Amino acid sequence: MSRILILLGGLVLGGVTQTLAADTCLGCHEKETPAAVAQWRGSAHAASVGCADCHGSNHDKIVAGTSRVEAKVCGRCHDKAYHEHVTSRHGMGLHSGWGCTRAMEKRDPRECRFCHEEGSTLPKSTVHCARFLMQSSEMGEIGCNRCHQVESSCAACHANHLTSLEPLRRSEICATCHMGPDHPQWEMWQTSRHGVLNATVGEEAGPSCQNCHMPKGSHDVSFGITMTSGMDLLPESTRKSRRAEMLGICTQCHSRAFSEREFSRNDAVRDQSTALVARAAEVIRTLDDRKLLEPSPEQRPAHPLGGKALVLDNQMLYENLSRAERLFFKMKKYDLAKAVKGAYHQNPAYTHWYGNAELKLTLAEIESEAALLNRVSGRQAGTADRRQEDGFVGQEQRLQELKRRFERGGMSAEEYAAEKARVLERLRNEPRN
Amino acid sequence: MSRILILLGGLVLGGVTQTLAADTCLGCHEKETPAAVAQWRGSAHAASVGCADCHGSNHDKIVAGTSRVEAKVCGRCHDKAYHEHVTSRHGMGLHSGWGCTRAMEKRDPRECRFCHEEGSTLPKSTVHCARFLMQSSEMGEIGCNRCHQVESSCAACHANHLTSLEPLRRSEICATCHMGPDHPQWEMWQTSRHGVLNATVGEEAGPSCQNCHMPKGSHDVSFGITMTSGMDLLPESTRKSRRAEMLGICTQCHSRAFSEREFSRNDAVRDQSTALVARAAEVIRTLDDRKLLEPSPEQRPAHPLGGKALVLDNQMLYENLSRAERLFFKMKKYDLAKAVKGAYHQNPAYTHWYGNAELKLTLAEIESEAALLNRVSGRQAGTADRRQEDGFVGQEQRLQELKRRFERGGMSAEEYAAEKARVLERLRNEPRN
Amino acid sequence: MSRILILLGGLVLGGVTQTLAADTCLGCHEKETPAAVAQWRGSAHAASVGCADCHGSNHDKIVAGTSRVEAKVCGRCHDKAYHEHVTSRHGMGLHSGWGCTRAMEKRDPRECRFCHEEGSTLPKSTVHCARFLMQSSEMGEIGCNRCHQVESSCAACHANHLTSLEPLRRSEICATCHMGPDHPQWEMWQTSRHGVLNATVGEEAGPSCQNCHMPKGSHDVSFGITMTSGMDLLPESTRKSRRAEMLGICTQCHSRAFSEREFSRNDAVRDQSTALVARAAEVIRTLDDRKLLEPSPEQRPAHPLGGKALVLDNQMLYENLSRAERLFFKMKKYDLAKAVKGAYHQNPAYTHWYGNAELKLTLAEIESEAALLNRVSGRQAGTADRRQEDGFVGQEQRLQELKRRFERGGMSAEEYAAEKARVLERLRNEPRN
Repeated sequence: MSRILILLGGLVLGGVTQTLAADTCLGCHEKETPAAVAQWRGSAHAASVGCADCHGSNHDKIVAGTSRVEAKVCGRCHDKAYHEHVTSRHGMGLHSGWGCTRAMEKRDPRECRFCHEEGSTLPKSTVHCARFLMQSSEMGEIGCNRCHQVESSCAACHANHLTSLEPLRRSEICATCHMGPDHPQWEMWQTSRHGVLNATVGEEAGPSCQNCHMPKGSHDVSFGITMTSGMDLLPESTRKSRRAEMLGICTQCHSRAFSEREFSRNDAVRDQSTALVARAAEVIRTLDDRKLLEPSPEQRPAHPLGGKALVLDNQMLYENLSRAERLFFKMKKYDLAKAVKGAYHQNPAYTHWYGNAELKLTLAEIESEAALLNRVSGRQAGTADRRQEDGFVGQEQRLQELKRRFERGGMSAEEYAAEKARVLERLRNEPRN
Repeated sequence: MSRILILLGGLVLGGVTQTLAADTCLGCHEKETPAAVAQWRGSAHAASVGCADCHGSNHDKIVAGTSRVEAKVCGRCHDKAYHEHVTSRHGMGLHSGWGCTRAMEKRDPRECRFCHEEGSTLPKSTVHCARFLMQSSEMGEIGCNRCHQVESSCAACHANHLTSLEPLRRSEICATCHMGPDHPQWEMWQTSRHGVLNATVGEEAGPSCQNCHMPKGSHDVSFGITMTSGMDLLPESTRKSRRAEMLGICTQCHSRAFSEREFSRNDAVRDQSTALVARAAEVIRTLDDRKLLEPSPEQRPAHPLGGKALVLDNQMLYENLSRAERLFFKMKKYDLAKAVKGAYHQNPAYTHWYGNAELKLTLAEIESEAALLNRVSGRQAGTADRRQEDGFVGQEQRLQELKRRFERGGMSAEEYAAEKARVLERLRNEPRN
Repeated sequence: MSRILILLGGLVLGGVTQTLAADTCLGCHEKETPAAVAQWRGSAHAASVGCADCHGSNHDKIVAGTSRVEAKVCGRCHDKAYHEHVTSRHGMGLHSGWGCTRAMEKRDPRECRFCHEEGSTLPKSTVHCARFLMQSSEMGEIGCNRCHQVESSCAACHANHLTSLEPLRRSEICATCHMGPDHPQWEMWQTSRHGVLNATVGEEAGPSCQNCHMPKGSHDVSFGITMTSGMDLLPESTRKSRRAEMLGICTQCHSRAFSEREFSRNDAVRDQSTALVARAAEVIRTLDDRKLLEPSPEQRPAHPLGGKALVLDNQMLYENLSRAERLFFKMKKYDLAKAVKGAYHQNPAYTHWYGNAELKLTLAEIESEAALLNRVSGRQAGTADRRQEDGFVGQEQRLQELKRRFERGGMSAEEYAAEKARVLERLRNEPRN
């Protein structure tokens, strides 16, 4: 393959120059990558946008994979879409997939460019993802970044060399990333009434992902969204305006009253589901207080952001966990998303069976695990009854637990006072042992 | 929006009156719900069935969501389909989704109409569902009833304003409800040979849901079905006639000998799978006898139908369970359905991997859990060997357990007599401790 | 139905004879199996291949299901495809589904023909599958063989009476078998970029299963494959030539550099994932050494191939397991396949969430289970820290464990020497207890 490309400069779009450049590349690539060339030939780009316009003219870098066609390259021509994209959730999404990996062994140095300008140590981004930091270089690339590259690569959704927009308007395009145990939007849409009518009648009867989330071809995918990607609530004012946006879409088919009633039910399911996760977190924090998690946060490798402490928030890892935490991870990351996103996407099986039922079953399992750990360690159950109370030493410890729980918001001031009084009362009445 | 609709009466179908009424509604709804109006305009109803014919003329009730278009409204014109529907499983299905919710906090009083005639406390139905009773009002509506509304709403399958029957003949229409962990008929059909040939060749080579279960457009979806929705066997005489019905469908493509051989294998898988669930139930009942479930039925909130007792039948809840019961719920409600329905739908992966393998793996997990609970509590394993027998007190307790197990049918009279003799023999030979 | 078929001989293809024979069958089968007949009439076979040419002329055997149309029947005309098929993985695949079942109760004697020539006890194959041996006759047939029949039945993929090749070129055809928890190639392809572009643009943009694995209509499905169906690596020389084959496919669209970089990442994910499974196996072997598995291999029914020993390889069963082994089965059989095959099929959700995350979560669960079993039995954790060491007896046992672990390759000679010295040092310093 000829490595010397006859190029007359960097970014001269249109006209003879690029066509020449394209011809130069095509000499080899007709044979090397025939289907890619055929796709380009059939595309709107063939008329005036040649290979080097997007790929650049440094063939060595292209071969080494360090000259990816970034979104800003596309943005030179597609300004409106680019601007909508980078200021939306898709444009910010990638950051959550990253943290600096320079200190980790066996890192592929080519990864640096995802966060740093070439030759610079200044980060483009300071957002961290603990789970990404725990990956191998390869899993980070083909597990995490294959989706999180959406920030900087238009080809994440648009196919590399195709320019037809028709395929881009179909929900399938979103499936590769918006699927799986952590956020099965594709699966829940596909079997919702919207998805079913889309498949059997068409988008005039059942809207696609794009119809609701990218109306009129907008690339602002934050449109109408009221939660962060970690499923925390956005500020109320943002939620209000976003909800109004989405209602504008719903009322193209449904009445306002119906749509608002639906959203109010969905919001209630969101809050009820979140409360189940919070209950499970409290069980686990109490186990941690009692040193019953095995391995404990102290015993295991330090969390890359939180160190030797219990981490149950969006930075929670999925490795080196005790069983109770492993179950909690499922609740928080998988079941909650299925219940809540299932409700907003009108999928009863996801809302109820994959979501609500799994949340409750797994909460029960965590509480049962806690009861067993308490029993094995000679403690009474933390979440069940108090048939047999501990003696003096146990009461002291229980007072400390109550204090910690109150301080982290796990019980109200009234509950704390009442429970504390109860323990102290018992301490007075019972002999030391 | 004009709330005064010019209507000349309730249910005069056809002709000028309703067209006027429709026009009156359309004045606002062309702008308010344009897609819904467009669907109606393109439908067979546009010629003579106007808005108020189905929705009624009380706009306040429509807005409040208390004037849903019930199946009987459709039945005024579509008599045959309505009659087939309400006397079939779909027509009775909803009942299983309901129980009276008046005593529960924060109930939406609009729900009453699902079971009661307006203004009446007399129930239309007395069938209960314990799981429904444990839901919030919102989960009950968008988790349970979004599917179980099929009894009283034709729109559960038919789209609201479309009248074309072509989409209704595709399996996708059934997917929204017949999917998920508890009965993934959609998933198992789609990847069965029937589903694959339906997708690649057409329904002449691979039948749809409707081809077998709603032959010739019948709305009697009980056609050919030999089990209740809770997977109990129907009476033998019913099973026989239903099987004959379904064989009539199979033999349109397959020979009678082949079809009967298939059914006989499917029935065997059904019985073998049910037996695995029964084995697991026995392990759990023994744990309950020994007070090793935590929380025990006594410790947890009362079951809404069964009270403070162990419930392992179709009314089993999925909350406040011990781990062993949580695993049992998965076996009974998910794995069993996948094995059995997978067999009848000719899907090897559901029959074997999602069904049979999960049943056996989960049974093993329940038995392993039982062994651990026995060990932790100082008891020997109930299902494994008897390397170290308990002393006198343990033997007394074991005799009681044997009696209870025998009485509930967990062992035959011969097994009971033999096991009892074995314990008594040991009691004579060993000193009290 | 007339059981006497007028046939002029066995295998005379083409011409008047078979047409007559077909007509003879059709007299009944137009009514008995009308759709099957209609499919045949519309097929290329209708011109010259009649019923008896494939089904034979013994109607009793056909009815009894003992005269299946084997692949070699098709091979009489379709020689090239047949030869490619039987020498490929599909042709050998069935063997793994079999073991002799003559000693098992309630066997269907018709099964014998799958391994034996009729009337002969000489096996056609000696390959065993322990999981198959544990199945009922019916589950073996409709769970295992419905897929593993691919060796001897062309109809496993090709529909019985259709001859159009168009449907055969679609990925759906592969779905019925290549799906499910143990190898969801269908699901991971469908939502990969390849699958998404196949659905939205066509196979020129997104290749089907057949485009990569059966190029140019080849029936050699071993093409380009570098692992056994049990996910063991093939010999390096085979891997090298197979990889070169597949790169020839990839480079039809992608550059060689890109394709090789992808494969190198996929291989790394394969090795990292396999290492996680090996770590889990070591935890379980240590539990077995300490007699902490319940039921232990000695306590449970003998493994049909391995007897009363721990089996963690590809012949591992999924029944009568301890919980730790049940979790290991999930890792080895389900999670590993999702991670590795997900990587090779470019599906980030399978690679990462269904694969990598589940591997790590389940490994954590196994280690947590081991810690609990150690604690309950009065031992310290095998995989966590060594805060409190056992006394003299424990040290003796620990020396034996170390020896066994070293001998089975679970630790290096250096690790063994160091650990052994550490235990001996403690033995010298601490008093016997």
